[in-house]
Amino acid sequence: MSQPGLGTDGCEADAVRVLGVDPGLTRCGIGVVDARPGRRAVLVNVEVVTTSPEADLAARLFAVSRAIEAAIAEHRPDALAVERVFSQHNVQSVMGTAQASGVAILAGARAGLPVTLHTPTEVKAAVTGSGRAGKAQVAAMVVRILGLDEAPRPSDAADALALAICHLWRGPVLPAGVAAAAGAVLGSGPTPAQRAWADATRRAGRRAVR
Amino acid sequence: MSQPGLGTDGCEADAVRVLGVDPGLTRCGIGVVDARPGRRAVLVNVEVVTTSPEADLAARLFAVSRAIEAAIAEHRPDALAVERVFSQHNVQSVMGTAQASGVAILAGARAGLPVTLHTPTEVKAAVTGSGRAGKAQVAAMVVRILGLDEAPRPSDAADALALAICHLWRGPVLPAGVAAAAGAVLGSGPTPAQRAWADATRRAGRRAVR
Repeated sequence: MSQPGLGTDGCEADAVRVLGVDPGLTRCGIGVVDARPGRRAVLVNVEVVTTSPEADLAARLFAVSRAIEAAIAEHRPDALAVERVFSQHNVQSVMGTAQASGVAILAGARAGLPVTLHTPTEVKAAVTGSGRAGKAQVAAMVVRILGLDEAPRPSDAADALALAICHLWRGPVLPAGVAAAAGAVLGSGPTPAQRAWADATRRAGRRAVR
Repeated sequence: MSQPGLGTDGCEADAVRVLGVDPGLTRCGIGVVDARPGRRAVLVNVEVVTTSPEADLAARLFAVSRAIEAAIAEHRPDALAVERVFSQHNVQSVMGTAQASGVAILAGARAGLPVTLHTPTEVKAAVTGSGRAGKAQVAAMVVRILGLDEAPRPSDAADALALAICHLWRGPVLPAGVAAAAGAVLGSGPTPAQRAWADATRRAGRRAVR
């Protein structure tokens, strides 16, 4: 695989960095992933901001906002990917989740970054090959895709990384040059995750879903 | 009615100013109301920010955020009152409304202001005496309470003012001195709105609801 013009650090001009946000008030996952042509995606950072359900709503949203803005300032992503919140999911907490997502999207807009929403189904399909994958499958594929030693915990951390990976692989963030060069790794044909998933399901004697 | 230490402009030390936000993406009402001991509540400003449903969600939230921050900077309220969004209302737009409310609450927190949520029922009850009042009743009472010549339009403008009035009358924002001095106008017994509503319903031959 040719890797023209690539060095070894995570900040080459042709690398693309995505900050994924799994929005929430009690736990908000923030994951940063780099993609470079011909290379596997690389974990840059992952964290989970927590706020107490006992705390004032305004203080909680402010804490989430500050954490995302700090991550943007520190890691300087090229794009934000935020999970799309649906009203039919968990009515108890959905309003807080939606408010946190609004704050996350605003942080991207303030920083002048493109912000894209991805549905949970899109994220699962991108990283596991199945839109109906469970949290454990998603976490396992994040570990494999990023070459980690173990799954980031809690699951909000893995979900934020999965969002960033989904966004990189779905393509809108990639500049034309990167997208063209990315070839087998980032774009055309099944993704590495999809191939890995297909391998895994073959080994398990089942057909890959997608 | 005694009015100790009050001048004629809207910024006396013992005046309390509330910025009410009726959150929304397509239309977001922002109303500013002053309350002073022994005086009727006074309209300071009202506006409705509109964004196009065709526009990018991030751009829309950013526009709402900028408008609320500009209103805070210009009018320097003592508190923010934001309508509480419920998931059972209008599933089509509720996510955008919740995101806009998150952005409004964040703007208050950023400015170091106390932020309080009020339910639509609380707002209607505070200004009309009935938690089941319609939009026209709310608008009519806002006109009467603030001594306006006509109802602010669109209804989001009247709703934002009603939120600010509700917040002033429900009391948490009032400093002890103001609350004590406010007496008949701002606190004890039925509010002026409730008395006006009771009068109106008496004239209409119906019993006031509450």
